[in-house]
Amino acid sequence: MSITLDLNCDMGESYGAWTMGNDAAILPFVSSANIACGYHGGDPATMRRTVAAALEHGVALGAHPSLPDLVGFGRRPMQISPQEAYDMVVVQVGALAGVAASQGARLHHVKAHGALYNMAAKDGALARAICTAVRDVDAELVLYGLAGSQWVDAAQGAGLQLAQEVFADRSYQDDGSLTPRTQAGAMITDVDQAVAQVLHMVQQRAVTSLNGKRVPLEPDTLCLHGDQPDALAFATAIRAALEQAGITVRAPGKRR
Amino acid sequence: MSITLDLNCDMGESYGAWTMGNDAAILPFVSSANIACGYHGGDPATMRRTVAAALEHGVALGAHPSLPDLVGFGRRPMQISPQEAYDMVVVQVGALAGVAASQGARLHHVKAHGALYNMAAKDGALARAICTAVRDVDAELVLYGLAGSQWVDAAQGAGLQLAQEVFADRSYQDDGSLTPRTQAGAMITDVDQAVAQVLHMVQQRAVTSLNGKRVPLEPDTLCLHGDQPDALAFATAIRAALEQAGITVRAPGKRR
Amino acid sequence: MSITLDLNCDMGESYGAWTMGNDAAILPFVSSANIACGYHGGDPATMRRTVAAALEHGVALGAHPSLPDLVGFGRRPMQISPQEAYDMVVVQVGALAGVAASQGARLHHVKAHGALYNMAAKDGALARAICTAVRDVDAELVLYGLAGSQWVDAAQGAGLQLAQEVFADRSYQDDGSLTPRTQAGAMITDVDQAVAQVLHMVQQRAVTSLNGKRVPLEPDTLCLHGDQPDALAFATAIRAALEQAGITVRAPGKRR
Amino acid sequence: MSITLDLNCDMGESYGAWTMGNDAAILPFVSSANIACGYHGGDPATMRRTVAAALEHGVALGAHPSLPDLVGFGRRPMQISPQEAYDMVVVQVGALAGVAASQGARLHHVKAHGALYNMAAKDGALARAICTAVRDVDAELVLYGLAGSQWVDAAQGAGLQLAQEVFADRSYQDDGSLTPRTQAGAMITDVDQAVAQVLHMVQQRAVTSLNGKRVPLEPDTLCLHGDQPDALAFATAIRAALEQAGITVRAPGKRR
Repeated sequence: MSITLDLNCDMGESYGAWTMGNDAAILPFVSSANIACGYHGGDPATMRRTVAAALEHGVALGAHPSLPDLVGFGRRPMQISPQEAYDMVVVQVGALAGVAASQGARLHHVKAHGALYNMAAKDGALARAICTAVRDVDAELVLYGLAGSQWVDAAQGAGLQLAQEVFADRSYQDDGSLTPRTQAGAMITDVDQAVAQVLHMVQQRAVTSLNGKRVPLEPDTLCLHGDQPDALAFATAIRAALEQAGITVRAPGKRR
Repeated sequence: MSITLDLNCDMGESYGAWTMGNDAAILPFVSSANIACGYHGGDPATMRRTVAAALEHGVALGAHPSLPDLVGFGRRPMQISPQEAYDMVVVQVGALAGVAASQGARLHHVKAHGALYNMAAKDGALARAICTAVRDVDAELVLYGLAGSQWVDAAQGAGLQLAQEVFADRSYQDDGSLTPRTQAGAMITDVDQAVAQVLHMVQQRAVTSLNGKRVPLEPDTLCLHGDQPDALAFATAIRAALEQAGITVRAPGKRR
Repeated sequence: MSITLDLNCDMGESYGAWTMGNDAAILPFVSSANIACGYHGGDPATMRRTVAAALEHGVALGAHPSLPDLVGFGRRPMQISPQEAYDMVVVQVGALAGVAASQGARLHHVKAHGALYNMAAKDGALARAICTAVRDVDAELVLYGLAGSQWVDAAQGAGLQLAQEVFADRSYQDDGSLTPRTQAGAMITDVDQAVAQVLHMVQQRAVTSLNGKRVPLEPDTLCLHGDQPDALAFATAIRAALEQAGITVRAPGKRR
Repeated sequence: MSITLDLNCDMGESYGAWTMGNDAAILPFVSSANIACGYHGGDPATMRRTVAAALEHGVALGAHPSLPDLVGFGRRPMQISPQEAYDMVVVQVGALAGVAASQGARLHHVKAHGALYNMAAKDGALARAICTAVRDVDAELVLYGLAGSQWVDAAQGAGLQLAQEVFADRSYQDDGSLTPRTQAGAMITDVDQAVAQVLHMVQQRAVTSLNGKRVPLEPDTLCLHGDQPDALAFATAIRAALEQAGITVRAPGKRR
């Protein structure tokens, strides 16, 4: 059996008259799309267009729910209860599922956005509430969560299929967490270095931490950032390197 | 076969810290609930609670999509394109369908709210766009629309089951339209008169206009207003009169 | 010189079709009103009506800025930068100042709402940013802040006149902070006890903590809660007790 | 006395993480800026930055209030009452006035945005409500309104100084109205033709309609569009032509 890796990217984050990202250019390189659901971006027309574009490219559809913070793009942590997290995920996943259904398709996965993703990675109660919400809406959805974080137990506890997420452009700490952006060496800006980290993670099931330590990882899906200047260069290089190494790029799970 | 009539009521129109209506008191009298989807009321927690309460009472679940006008409660007409109407209905129906799914239930119908309902009653292109949206999300949903309006052709054109809506507390014009609220005699405030109009409509398949003319109607569902002072008195009296007359109160269609 | 105390109350927290509180009943008892500015409540029509009602009663006008969280009523802490706090306060104070100006009046004070108030009470950088914003918009505004908190230094550092706020219905800890609502004894629900605490605070410039310790305080303004069932009973009793004790109820500062 | 013309441009229409327009490039060419106030664009940080940039360039500050339609960018007509228009203009002008005050500056003018501007141009009651709102907030503000429209009488009725607005890139009808964008010949895309129309309007106090008829006009301010591909080319050419013709580019009124 060949090794596989999913390439995911956040998409559909334009809003009304404002555009963001470069979805059309990135779509050919990814196998799954995390589509904004209106809380941090993604008005109804953008949701429709993004679902249609993903379907055209055979890219798996994912909901990308957020905290309700349009002006802050969902990046500011808010103190919410697990019940509030549950409720906001249900309506956002439902909204995007409605868009998918209107085009004869079904959702494949859910990946939380920004602060909600990061908060739940460290807060098991929040992660469990979100995973329960996803399961309650559609138990066949795949949950994308940070490898080695609270997402892992939460998804498994809810009986969801889990895809552990890794990053090409971020360095790792000895405990498997991402180096905070405020620290030196957090970002990997060199394409070759990023490619090397990806191949190492996929082939060795481990990453080398910033301190040089081997940290085991289970990389199921790799996050490509679509809104950065060199997004396309990273996507092209990583996709090419994976294919050359005989690694199949495809979305995890049955419903893809 | 006995005569049947559906009693519907708008519900779940609270928002965050603000409450509206008296859903718990009205629920025992109705057979279907039109539940706000966030655009004119209905935050995610309210959507969850309202779906749960309706299910407890065996009341059919309907989505109640609106124009995006929270501060105006969806009552102010906006100039939107059919495509915009389509998109906003898809996401709102999808969101409430997600809430229903999370509680093991499915939506039964869709009834547009306020200005969106009134605009589409007169504007065939808008009505068709909304009906197409409903059909594309779930072709088994029943469409509630003003009897004798553009909703009728639009729902049928989209292949949707239609429930024609009539009113107990509004008088009718010779052409079957509702007397505008700005005109004298528009509102029926006497409970006995309202009950008499309902029984006449259901048993005679017609209403007597303000001018005394007989206007044919096909009453499938009757709208009860939940947010008015005497809402409960109307609901109680109408429900009792219907049962006494041997008319079965139940939601239309198969999925109820 | 007679002792004075300001009685303030949050007002204008209705939104669109939703009403909250009982402003008309409370206004005769207070000397200053904290008026919502749209972020947690208070649409433009409500802002206009609330300013008009306060002016009719000779009540000092205050802006009541909040975090941008309508659905959460500004009660959920959000992680914002001091610059973000500064910006959101400037626009909210400006908006209400515009409403006041349109009625020939000027603002008298600013009191932050909910989570923003509580966050800044503990976070000096946030308190300073907000006080600087208030000062930059209008240096004659009075800043209302929790007695003994970070608000005190921040207001003084910005050169603003400060009114230290105390509570009739909350017990205090030995360090002068409010007993958290999650702890037993946090709320004072007995009117007589509340009245006694107020008189003690004003006349002795101190409060007796839950542990029985004497904690010095400088009470300039007392917060009445307008949205609780017995709000009117508290307001009536406290106002009467103050007047009977010869304490003048009036807003602090020159512009009242 | 030399002839003068104001060059105005809509600015500050970015929102949160989304950017719009090219304010920095256009600012050197204009004498007044219409700054979004949050309803169709313009979050608090953008308002602050835009005011600061305008002040750096000595450009007069204007509020650019809109209908409350963020997702529709204020371009969709809504049926609002004059009172609703009054209220929304008061709070938006107040908010931007607060930002200006925080930087030691005052507002110079108000120009309504998008659908609100167009609706009021034809609806005297709406125009009067908006002009009254502007006057009530600050009677020294200049009102920018479409030349020859309902804005003219409304501003004069409210006692406001009026600046009649003309367009370089739009053709005119025989009655002085703009040719609707849906008709052929509505847009002037050739820079030279646009420059010629501007010079003709300013020097002859008239415009030649699409039918070739001379239509008298009183051009006080010219609208430059900042969000179009050739915005900078138009701005550069028009500014240069005006200066070469000895026409002084400056904002109207005393407070500039």
